[in-house]
Amino acid sequence: MNTTIAQLLERKSVRRFSGEPVTQAEFHTVIECAMAAPTAGNMALYTIVNITDQQVKDELADLCDNQPFIAKAPVVLLFLADCRRWVDAFEVAGCQPHPPGPGDLYLGLCDALIAAQNAVTAAHALGLGSCYIGDIVEHRDRLVSLLDLDEYTFPATLLVLGHPSPHQRRPKPKRFPVSAILRQERYRRLAPDEQRAAFAARGEDFDTFVPAFHDRKYASAFEAELNAGVAAYLAPFLRTAKTEA
Amino acid sequence: MNTTIAQLLERKSVRRFSGEPVTQAEFHTVIECAMAAPTAGNMALYTIVNITDQQVKDELADLCDNQPFIAKAPVVLLFLADCRRWVDAFEVAGCQPHPPGPGDLYLGLCDALIAAQNAVTAAHALGLGSCYIGDIVEHRDRLVSLLDLDEYTFPATLLVLGHPSPHQRRPKPKRFPVSAILRQERYRRLAPDEQRAAFAARGEDFDTFVPAFHDRKYASAFEAELNAGVAAYLAPFLRTAKTEA
Repeated sequence: MNTTIAQLLERKSVRRFSGEPVTQAEFHTVIECAMAAPTAGNMALYTIVNITDQQVKDELADLCDNQPFIAKAPVVLLFLADCRRWVDAFEVAGCQPHPPGPGDLYLGLCDALIAAQNAVTAAHALGLGSCYIGDIVEHRDRLVSLLDLDEYTFPATLLVLGHPSPHQRRPKPKRFPVSAILRQERYRRLAPDEQRAAFAARGEDFDTFVPAFHDRKYASAFEAELNAGVAAYLAPFLRTAKTEA
Repeated sequence: MNTTIAQLLERKSVRRFSGEPVTQAEFHTVIECAMAAPTAGNMALYTIVNITDQQVKDELADLCDNQPFIAKAPVVLLFLADCRRWVDAFEVAGCQPHPPGPGDLYLGLCDALIAAQNAVTAAHALGLGSCYIGDIVEHRDRLVSLLDLDEYTFPATLLVLGHPSPHQRRPKPKRFPVSAILRQERYRRLAPDEQRAAFAARGEDFDTFVPAFHDRKYASAFEAELNAGVAAYLAPFLRTAKTEA
């Protein structure tokens, strides 16, 4: 099989790293591949922050729902949607740019996440493991002050990288079947029997798995923090928003 | 060089397609690679809509800032962040889920965009070209009615795919230098001389390129539609949002 396809299919998240350091060459290749990703109008509406300070890594592990493996990762990269850079460029050039709105933020989030996934694919191709940390959007005030974030940036994701420890606990989790994800021509909601079949295809018993997942994840304190955090990050982008052009 | 790395670095957007059809096997591999992408808690908070109806493709080309090549693309895939599917599953299972908030949407956007970039990388590995269409977020009402979108979905991106025509107009655009994108330890804004150097590294004259780009793109009617569209898609997710957990 095509090597790239095989690597995309096999890649799984890695949360345990070996002591082997990530070399400068590996790091540079990962960044180069991230920056080669498609970007709207070649604007590159993102900034990558490379965090090496152990105290800051410890603090990130704590504020991302207390996940200690983050602090042990050899490489910790924050992918920020960054609408500030172009606004600054426009001002330096003598323009009077509008404050970034939710559509500008949307383009930045696309750019940042697409670049991050290129970093993940490049890392895997180099033998490096990776894990996305969505919890980075919780506790806005702490993160903003820890990393001097600008109000026109948004933490699209935190990505940790390193050589995998030989002791990985979990196999790649089974995905939903294509029939649950792919629709033809238009959107429609799944019927109850289709919902049940989708979970059954992952080997999960719907009536025990789904309520337990609801209570443990969807109704959890960290999900509330996630919603509150994102609302707080959105606020500066919604100041001037209109719903009609 | 590592094949996967080389492919990530060389891939560029394709807007002109040959008449060669995308086979079912190619299509299936692209979808399979998208679905193999990392997803928060294995929730797969996205739905892919495969649009083949020529009238609908024509309408999409029009509502995405009038870009006729969209209607000519052999494959047109809408990647939706989808918070509806799990809310429905929770309800079928007898739970009382909270309405999706901005944090839930954030996770869906991450899932959808990360899956889309795997589709792009897989397509390139198969010899297929691709192009992202961010304009899909403009004109919410028209798109919602065209594709029966649910209020708890969000068009993360439109992706068009096909075998490239041998007549591609543009080389891959030069990226900003790493120094403009990568920060060490914390965020900081670029100083005016760094801004100028970043554009100079792309071969652009700051004082002519940046104001022209501002007027042609950032201050354009479609950018206003983009901001209005995203604000409209966000509204259902913000109904119950609090900024403190």
